[in-house]
Amino acid sequence: MTKEKIILGIDPGTTIMGFGLIKVVGKKMEFLQMNELLLQKYKDPYVKLKLIYERTIALIDEYHPDEIAIEAPFFGKNVQSMLKLGRAQGVAMAAGLSREIAITEYLPKKIKMAITGNGNASKEQVAKMLQSILKLESLPKNLDATDGLAAAVCHFYNEGKIDSGKSYSSWASFVSQNSDKIKK
Amino acid sequence: MTKEKIILGIDPGTTIMGFGLIKVVGKKMEFLQMNELLLQKYKDPYVKLKLIYERTIALIDEYHPDEIAIEAPFFGKNVQSMLKLGRAQGVAMAAGLSREIAITEYLPKKIKMAITGNGNASKEQVAKMLQSILKLESLPKNLDATDGLAAAVCHFYNEGKIDSGKSYSSWASFVSQNSDKIKK
Repeated sequence: MTKEKIILGIDPGTTIMGFGLIKVVGKKMEFLQMNELLLQKYKDPYVKLKLIYERTIALIDEYHPDEIAIEAPFFGKNVQSMLKLGRAQGVAMAAGLSREIAITEYLPKKIKMAITGNGNASKEQVAKMLQSILKLESLPKNLDATDGLAAAVCHFYNEGKIDSGKSYSSWASFVSQNSDKIKK
Repeated sequence: MTKEKIILGIDPGTTIMGFGLIKVVGKKMEFLQMNELLLQKYKDPYVKLKLIYERTIALIDEYHPDEIAIEAPFFGKNVQSMLKLGRAQGVAMAAGLSREIAITEYLPKKIKMAITGNGNASKEQVAKMLQSILKLESLPKNLDATDGLAAAVCHFYNEGKIDSGKSYSSWASFVSQNSDKIKK
């Protein structure tokens, strides 16, 4: 039987969360979905955070992803924007962690490199490559959805590589190696 | 009948999460609990985040707080530490938001001011005042727990004041005012 798994890619931000899902069958990828959650119209930052959390939980409950890949910049313009970004990442991560799903982070450059071979590729170049790789009939107007999808595809490409550029080991691998250390 | 409510105060950090609970009966406070979650020994940042999320959920499920107060600095030394702090805050917030509990943030200075009358008070001064206010028999060795408790007491003091210094309106108040705007 060919091994199947589903990867959820997320690009969480404070104004838009992009996300995409792929199904991996053996060594082949299959496109499932991509979309974006628009948050600009909500002024209350807690509403934004709650919607990110709820949408991530809803995606998990609908698609049952085996793994989550997150686009996570480590650098930003200022401390306040990074605090906000950290919160947006945190609530998305909480959704995954609460369902015991392994999370892997990728730097934006790493994702662009994995998809296009160029760490400085534009959003449009990444989107065009995704369209070609996944045989998408069309691309969304707003390319934030493709950023989420790109994280999922990047994760597929990087899996199994020793020097995978993963920022951290996953929760699942930590648990399997350190089950005695985890106190709840 | 005297109105009762329970406030959970949290000081989420990437190495220690301090937390405290008080019960408010009319205009009186009653101490319920305080403690700290030590995270230094875990190297995996996802383990830390998962433990913060799980402990917050566990406190909510045990004490059924009506409101959550979070100590939340808005400034930090560098963007990376703020990103990490944002994530720690985010997972704690996700726990509260997932249970529909109103969250209010307070700056550290605001909390110190509310408890001691001095925005630059030391941890020890804040702890001593809390001991006096809540008639605590003893103080914990490590004062991170009292930081969480201080957030809860600060929230009690600030409630009902028009110029309360709240960083944001609560989720609950947003919902009551904007229920038509919230799409899930």
